[in-house]
Amino acid sequence: MQLLTVGSVAFDAIETPFGKSDKIVGGAGTYITLAASFFNQNQGLVSVVGEDFPKEVLEKIHSRGIDISGIQIPEGGKTFFWAGRYHNDMNSRDTLVTELNVLGTFDPVVPVQFKNAPFLMLGNLSPDVQRKVVDQMEQRPRLIAMDTMNFWMDIALEELHKTLKVVDLLIINDEEARQLTQQYSLKTAAAKIMELGPKSVIIKKGEHGALLFHGGLIFSAPALPLEEVFDPTGAGDSFAGGLMGFLSSHGEVSFETLKKAVIAGSAVASFCVEKFGTQRLEEITQKDIAERMSMLHQLSHFELTGYGAA
Amino acid sequence: MQLLTVGSVAFDAIETPFGKSDKIVGGAGTYITLAASFFNQNQGLVSVVGEDFPKEVLEKIHSRGIDISGIQIPEGGKTFFWAGRYHNDMNSRDTLVTELNVLGTFDPVVPVQFKNAPFLMLGNLSPDVQRKVVDQMEQRPRLIAMDTMNFWMDIALEELHKTLKVVDLLIINDEEARQLTQQYSLKTAAAKIMELGPKSVIIKKGEHGALLFHGGLIFSAPALPLEEVFDPTGAGDSFAGGLMGFLSSHGEVSFETLKKAVIAGSAVASFCVEKFGTQRLEEITQKDIAERMSMLHQLSHFELTGYGAA
Repeated sequence: MQLLTVGSVAFDAIETPFGKSDKIVGGAGTYITLAASFFNQNQGLVSVVGEDFPKEVLEKIHSRGIDISGIQIPEGGKTFFWAGRYHNDMNSRDTLVTELNVLGTFDPVVPVQFKNAPFLMLGNLSPDVQRKVVDQMEQRPRLIAMDTMNFWMDIALEELHKTLKVVDLLIINDEEARQLTQQYSLKTAAAKIMELGPKSVIIKKGEHGALLFHGGLIFSAPALPLEEVFDPTGAGDSFAGGLMGFLSSHGEVSFETLKKAVIAGSAVASFCVEKFGTQRLEEITQKDIAERMSMLHQLSHFELTGYGAA
Repeated sequence: MQLLTVGSVAFDAIETPFGKSDKIVGGAGTYITLAASFFNQNQGLVSVVGEDFPKEVLEKIHSRGIDISGIQIPEGGKTFFWAGRYHNDMNSRDTLVTELNVLGTFDPVVPVQFKNAPFLMLGNLSPDVQRKVVDQMEQRPRLIAMDTMNFWMDIALEELHKTLKVVDLLIINDEEARQLTQQYSLKTAAAKIMELGPKSVIIKKGEHGALLFHGGLIFSAPALPLEEVFDPTGAGDSFAGGLMGFLSSHGEVSFETLKKAVIAGSAVASFCVEKFGTQRLEEITQKDIAERMSMLHQLSHFELTGYGAA
């Protein structure tokens, strides 16, 4: 079943306490589609790069079953560039450089062969660009998921609310959920978000796992306790990509499928952080991910049978 | 099966964003035995109070199946008093008053009828007082668990290491685990702690649940997403009490039993925070706790059967 993603394809330069990367390929669209490709090879990506972007990388993306005809390459344009430095706790980072370049004037065009895609993932972009993609769909997708960030809450809250109205699932982190709703309790925050449009909300909590809210139902997903996080860049997008890849390959969106999809996303994200950039995701196989999903199951599984108070 | 606890019985005065309590009964020993009493009515408490402590409260503790002959009442002494104010996020607090009073010279005496107790819980006290209790046991208990806090790491680290050497299970929060080991990763921190003595470690993460490390095995327990926390005082002790009550009532200490015991502790703690002090714990029944344990199961349960990559 088709999965369409809109998201940035970028150059990143990353510093962590473990080292420094060269200018490497990153961007939400890159991570999302790469992560989803473990579950679904029937994907499309809508994005924009500059003429400086290596053709062989586009070819590599294509070779994973990702239709790249929706990636624009404006003449003379330069690719979006981000440089950042992570702090020792790996939970916070400073942005050193943001060069929007071609992303600054990005006007997404959905290729005709994806206008009926049943699954649509809106990567973190300005909310009006996200909505432009939704507006081009011929048929209302079965599921529209979106990511966003505090930046858009600060400068484009009204636009963000408009986009929230037309999506089914919001995937954000705990800080962002608190900022968006001005609520400390994540349960209350999720309820407020569901009043804004989405029927489902996933709140990512980094090393503490994730919470899925779906109507009145809640699922608490564990995170794999890691000895070290080498580079957190792309973890959130890998999570969303694994999740949407899983969902779209199964075709249905029930609470039970969403739960498994959260586990799939967590498994992919747990690999992502082990090396710089997309490196680790390019090494692993479907089997590695299935094994890690089993580990997550084992980690959180318990039975109450045989239990009784004295 | 017998459970012996050593821990403070105190007066607390608590301020939270929701209000202010009178001078109410608190203390680790109080919360632990009260929480454990839902699972085990064969308990002893070693502690100390002043002559100002109400006899009817001691009688109420006794009426829950808790032997209070190990609670000393020094002549002319005053009960330990703590006053604190929680911040808006409920995760941090300021101590306003600490009057050690009789706790300052506490020399614990284990009643003869508890010198062979198979389960021993060392509530948060100075590590040498904790060890004095261990030293009085005639038979090595099947399980010795202990709590501690950053205060003892700051002023009595050497003593703390000595006590860690003689216990089986350390129950602390994430910040404390990081301070004790100087490790950010909780997995690495737990491994370091197990090198210091305990075979098992439970790291409490507040609203994010808890991690149980038992040899090479790990269990990630969820926490119930709450709409509001009214008063966090005693939550950690209720967790430890529920856990030890459950374990001691079952008599065996396997990874599977420990997992269920963590869930039992989480269930009791989730009630504790709903009202000031011990109030909520005094209202609920075993049935309420069993229901909440089922909720925790439902919250985190998922199956991977039927899953397959596309």
